[in-house]
Amino acid sequence: MEIITTGCIVAPAGFLAGSVSCGIKIAKDSLDLGIIFSAYPSTGAALFTTNQIYAAPVKLSRKIITRGCVRAFIVNSGNANACTGKQGYMDAEEMVRIAARYLKISEEELLIASTGIIGRPLPMDKIAAGIQSVVNSLGNTQEHGDDMARAIMTTDTKQKAIAVRLKIDKKEVTIGGITKGAGMIAPNLATMLCFLTTDVSMPPSLLNECLRNSVESSFNRITIDGHMSTNDTIAIIANGASGVNLLSKNDDLRIFQQGLDYVTSSLAKSIVMDGEGATKFVQIDVIGARSRSEAARIARSIADSPLVKTALNGEDPNWGRIVSAAGYAGVELDESKTTLSINDILIFAKGMPAQCDLTALSRSMKNMDITIRLALGLGDSRDTVWTCDLSHEYVTINAEYHT
Amino acid sequence: MEIITTGCIVAPAGFLAGSVSCGIKIAKDSLDLGIIFSAYPSTGAALFTTNQIYAAPVKLSRKIITRGCVRAFIVNSGNANACTGKQGYMDAEEMVRIAARYLKISEEELLIASTGIIGRPLPMDKIAAGIQSVVNSLGNTQEHGDDMARAIMTTDTKQKAIAVRLKIDKKEVTIGGITKGAGMIAPNLATMLCFLTTDVSMPPSLLNECLRNSVESSFNRITIDGHMSTNDTIAIIANGASGVNLLSKNDDLRIFQQGLDYVTSSLAKSIVMDGEGATKFVQIDVIGARSRSEAARIARSIADSPLVKTALNGEDPNWGRIVSAAGYAGVELDESKTTLSINDILIFAKGMPAQCDLTALSRSMKNMDITIRLALGLGDSRDTVWTCDLSHEYVTINAEYHT
Repeated sequence: MEIITTGCIVAPAGFLAGSVSCGIKIAKDSLDLGIIFSAYPSTGAALFTTNQIYAAPVKLSRKIITRGCVRAFIVNSGNANACTGKQGYMDAEEMVRIAARYLKISEEELLIASTGIIGRPLPMDKIAAGIQSVVNSLGNTQEHGDDMARAIMTTDTKQKAIAVRLKIDKKEVTIGGITKGAGMIAPNLATMLCFLTTDVSMPPSLLNECLRNSVESSFNRITIDGHMSTNDTIAIIANGASGVNLLSKNDDLRIFQQGLDYVTSSLAKSIVMDGEGATKFVQIDVIGARSRSEAARIARSIADSPLVKTALNGEDPNWGRIVSAAGYAGVELDESKTTLSINDILIFAKGMPAQCDLTALSRSMKNMDITIRLALGLGDSRDTVWTCDLSHEYVTINAEYHT
Repeated sequence: MEIITTGCIVAPAGFLAGSVSCGIKIAKDSLDLGIIFSAYPSTGAALFTTNQIYAAPVKLSRKIITRGCVRAFIVNSGNANACTGKQGYMDAEEMVRIAARYLKISEEELLIASTGIIGRPLPMDKIAAGIQSVVNSLGNTQEHGDDMARAIMTTDTKQKAIAVRLKIDKKEVTIGGITKGAGMIAPNLATMLCFLTTDVSMPPSLLNECLRNSVESSFNRITIDGHMSTNDTIAIIANGASGVNLLSKNDDLRIFQQGLDYVTSSLAKSIVMDGEGATKFVQIDVIGARSRSEAARIARSIADSPLVKTALNGEDPNWGRIVSAAGYAGVELDESKTTLSINDILIFAKGMPAQCDLTALSRSMKNMDITIRLALGLGDSRDTVWTCDLSHEYVTINAEYHT
C-alpha cells in the first residue's frame, strides 16, 4: 500500500477539484468554497450527524443520497447554514441548482455540505458568483487537491488529507480523502466534514456498507469534547475510472476496505491531533468486556471526563479519575477484576493500586502519545477510542470567542 | 419557616456532634474526623453513588442501612478509602466497631462515610485514637455543629450547612444538614457527602421515601463536571425528640417534605456555587418536553457540554452551542418548535435566531446568576438542572494537581 500526502482528493483517476475565496469567511483571500467532481458517472454514499438539530445542507443531502448516484460535492466553509429555517433550506437548494447547471449534471447527483458560523443567512450573491469561478477552475493537479483540503477548514490549524494506492486484481486503485475538525462546535463553528474519492466502481448499497464499516472504526472512535455537531458529514464517490469493479464481498473488497479504513483512521486521528488546544494524543483501549458496545461506553466515559482530560494535560497518571470514570459508564463492573495500565505500566491491578515504577510512569506521561488500557476481566470484547487532553488553550479558545 | 445558618447539624433536638484533627489530612490542625450522634434511638435512611466502582464505606453502609435503625454517622475526610480492596473494607468495619464501642450503641446503628484521596490505606492508629477523642468531645453547641461541617470538607472553599425550623401539629420541628462537594472527583478527592438530622420520628421506609423525593429535586439536579464519584453518600437520622411522629402521607408529612426539600436544595446549590473554579451559577430550565426524563436528559446535555460551560465562563450568549447540545441528548426534537431564552431574553425562536437586544443580553451575562430556558413545544413536562461554568481555574486546579 502506497501512501500519498499531496493532492490527495484528486489522486484517484477521473476526479477534479476547484476552490475559491468568495467572501463567506471574514479573513480576506481565505478559501471558502469548493467542488469535488467526478469526470465519469459514479455512485456515492454518505453518513450524517445524528444530532436532532441539523443544518439545511444535511437535510438536503440526506434526501439526495437516497438515490445513490453522486458525481460531485459542493462545500462552503465560514457559514454552517444551520438554525436558519426555511430560507436556509432554500439557499442550500439554490447552491445545488447553480452548481449542477455549471457542472452540467443533474441536481440529484450533487451532495452539499457547509461548516462555519451557526444562525446566519448565507451570502447567496457571493456564493453564486463563487460557484461559477470554482467550476471554471476545476483541475486535478496537486495544487487543486491541496487547495480543496484548505477550502473546508475553519479553526483547523493544519490541512488534513491522505490517499492510498492499492493493487486489486493487478490494477492500481486509489482512495483519497480530506477532512476538517478542530473542536466539535469550535467557536460556534460546525464542524466535522470528510470527503472521500475512489476510482473503483461499486453499487451504492455496497459502497454504503464499506463506508459505514470504515466510519465505525475511525470517526466513530474519536471524541474531542463530546459535543456533537449539527453539520457532520462523511461522504464518498466511486467512479470506476481504475477499471476495477467491486460487486460483492470477496477478497478484492477486503483489500479495498483495508485501504479505506487506513484513510479514514488517519483522517480521524488527524482531527484529534488538531483538537482545540490539544497537547496529547490519547488512545483508550478497553479490553476484557462483555461486548464491544460496553467497552465503547466505558472508553467514551473515560475520554469525555474533564477530570481525566485535565489530568492528561497536567501529565499526571491519575488512575483514580480513570477508574471512577469507567465506573459511571452505566456498565456493570467487578472492581476486583479491573486492571489499568498507562503507557504499558501497570498501575491498578484487580481492584488495588499496583506497585509500579512511578518515576518511569511520570516520565512517560510527557510523551505526546499516551495509551490508557483498562482490562475489565469480564469477557473477550474490546474497543478503542482516541481523544485529546483539556488545556488552558481550550478554555481560552472557547471562552474568549464572542458571538 | 425559620432559617438557621449556624450549628445547623445539631439544631434539631437530641443531636450531638464532635470532630477532631487526627492527622489523616496533611494540613496540620485540619479537622478530618467527626461523629454525628442521636441521644435517642432513631431511624435512618441513606442513598449512595451509583458508580460501579464504590468505596469500602459505601459498601459497608449499604449493608447497615437495610435495617433502618441509625443513631450515628462517622465520617473522615482526607482519605476516601476507595480502591483499597479487602483491607479497606476491614478498616471501615474496624472504624464502625471502635465508634460503636465508645458510643455504647450497636455496630448496626452506625453509618460510615469517607472522602479524600483514592487508593491509599487509612492510617488506622490515628483514626482509632481520634475516635476516642471525638466521642469525648461530643456536644450540641453552635461550635460543635460548625466544626462538624468543616470536618467533612476537602477542596471546598466554604463550609456548607443550613437548618430550618417548622411548625407541625403546633410543635417545633427542626431539620439540619451539612454537605461537601467541590469538583466531582476533585484533585483525586472523592466526593459529595450530605448528612441530615431531624427531631421528628418516622419509620425507616417513609423516611427513605422522603429522602429520595428530596434528593431527586436537589442533589440529582446538579452537575459540576459530569464526573460521578465513588463515595457519594446522603443520609438522614430522625430521632423523634420533638415529639412529632410522622407515620403516613398526610398534610404534616407534606410540611416536613417541604422543609427537607428546602434544606437539600440549599445544600445542593451551595455545592454548585463552590464548584472548582466556578464563577457562574447557572440554572437550566427545559420546558415543553414530552416527559420529565426527556427534559432532564436535555438539561444535563447542555449542562455537561464543555463548549456551553466555556461560553458561560466567557460571558457569551452562545445559543448555537446550547441548541446543538440539546440536539445530541438522544431525545427527538422539532427544531421549528424550539425556543431559547437566556436571562429571560428571547434569542432563538421556533428554529430561527430572534431579533433581540444583544447589548442588554451581553450585559446580563456578567451576572453571577444565569438562567437558560429552552422550550421544546412538544408537551407539558419540564425539568431543571443547576451547574457552573468551566474556567481556567478549573483546568489549573485539576491539571496542576499531581498524584
